Amino acid sequence: MSIQDVADSAFNDLIGFEISEWREDYVVLELKVQQKHLNRSGVVHGGVIATLIDAAAGFAGCYCSVPGNVRRAFTLSTTTNFCGQARSGTVRTVARRRAGGRKIYFASVEVFNDEGVLIALGDATYRYRAGSETLEGSPA
Amino acid sequence: MSIQDVADSAFNDLIGFEISEWREDYVVLELKVQQKHLNRSGVVHGGVIATLIDAAAGFAGCYCSVPGNVRRAFTLSTTTNFCGQARSGTVRTVARRRAGGRKIYFASVEVFNDEGVLIALGDATYRYRAGSETLEGSPA
Amino acid sequence: MSIQDVADSAFNDLIGFEISEWREDYVVLELKVQQKHLNRSGVVHGGVIATLIDAAAGFAGCYCSVPGNVRRAFTLSTTTNFCGQARSGTVRTVARRRAGGRKIYFASVEVFNDEGVLIALGDATYRYRAGSETLEGSPA
Amino acid sequence: MSIQDVADSAFNDLIGFEISEWREDYVVLELKVQQKHLNRSGVVHGGVIATLIDAAAGFAGCYCSVPGNVRRAFTLSTTTNFCGQARSGTVRTVARRRAGGRKIYFASVEVFNDEGVLIALGDATYRYRAGSETLEGSPA
Repeated sequence: MSIQDVADSAFNDLIGFEISEWREDYVVLELKVQQKHLNRSGVVHGGVIATLIDAAAGFAGCYCSVPGNVRRAFTLSTTTNFCGQARSGTVRTVARRRAGGRKIYFASVEVFNDEGVLIALGDATYRYRAGSETLEGSPA
Repeated sequence: MSIQDVADSAFNDLIGFEISEWREDYVVLELKVQQKHLNRSGVVHGGVIATLIDAAAGFAGCYCSVPGNVRRAFTLSTTTNFCGQARSGTVRTVARRRAGGRKIYFASVEVFNDEGVLIALGDATYRYRAGSETLEGSPA
Repeated sequence: MSIQDVADSAFNDLIGFEISEWREDYVVLELKVQQKHLNRSGVVHGGVIATLIDAAAGFAGCYCSVPGNVRRAFTLSTTTNFCGQARSGTVRTVARRRAGGRKIYFASVEVFNDEGVLIALGDATYRYRAGSETLEGSPA
Repeated sequence: MSIQDVADSAFNDLIGFEISEWREDYVVLELKVQQKHLNRSGVVHGGVIATLIDAAAGFAGCYCSVPGNVRRAFTLSTTTNFCGQARSGTVRTVARRRAGGRKIYFASVEVFNDEGVLIALGDATYRYRAGSETLEGSPA
């Protein structure tokens, strides 16, 4: 199962996004578009967008209120609808935890290009790992 | 709209998969798992899997029978269900074009880890770009 | 291809929802929960919810500004995440067209139970039929 | 959460499909197309297809080896890609449980029209209810 960690990972580093806001049930990621993110047509690759959606949906459900603690969840499913393009500037990804309980949660994600145009929509379901059921989380 | 090119792109190069089989309506991608593909738990990141699914579904519908010609399509939507994990070895992604016409096509994708265990399932819809409606494609 | 008509159909009649608001890019459907909508556990069946999502996403993109004209679209894909339950009262389905052009559009849908609790989330992609590309539509 | 029961429900009865094959991890549903299933264009409504997919994916993961016992699961998510049409005859829905464990499972579904043409593809994730984790199930 694809583990979505709520902390840096090698692949997240490779993509290179930053968390610009993070609170309970909500996160905003920002990615400065670089050459490496593009496909041959000069547009940000769908896989980059899918990575942002998966990462953001994970963070949105795993905010932790206790400094030093963490929460973790597995991605069960994600969907992505591609409705626009980004070529440069900053891509902004906004994810919200929409519903769920102690074991499963549901998140919605929107991705915007530098002009604020919606370029992708996604939904995701996650399953919390043991110790991550509550806002307090567990020691890392 | 996320353009899925049927040729190398900067982001596909960054991920580093290879096409091991490609024919009409079918493709197999292979990815040698490297440190950069992993999340903090040492498992291939969901974004890598989503990238493989998006790329493979694109290739499956864009095989071109005329050497030197190409076909291109936009990703409209992708779904990914994460049912297993990969940590090392080679990840194998198999995509099949399942249905469609001159404008839209549908593909199914399966991703397997080094032991041949299914780790992800996905479906995708694509829209052909002008000049890509037929198997012959157009000059690149 | 599953044609999503923007008018009554035999199956929509069987389900029995009503349109309570409809304007450009937006629709609200209301369904009074009846025995026939339930599964054995006394909860509204997932298929009813999926029908509401498909219908609402269709209406949201097919509002027509000219009385007597219609617009039609094919469903390409839908996704549904089930995050709650409805047992009785009125189920309210809200759909918004989020993006798109003359050929393809994208919609997001939320479904709420009688207490206003979110019970399902969905996204959908549609393709307009010929003559339905603009807000004016075509004669029925 | 949309409970997918492994037995008749009011809504399943309303749709009127029959189980023609059912064994561990596999089910085939057959639906004789009737007027009530159609939309205004005379094509089986997307909501009927989505209901068949949800129902079949539920059955595929809830086969029970002990006569008189049952297994139940909640639908977490479903996706449907609509790639063809049915107008009459028998619609055949084939679902396979593809992966999963004691808590969560994943299924893939294909829907065919009377000529054997693929008309829809879907994937689904389910969560087992307590007492349904094993093939033996629990007393109804």
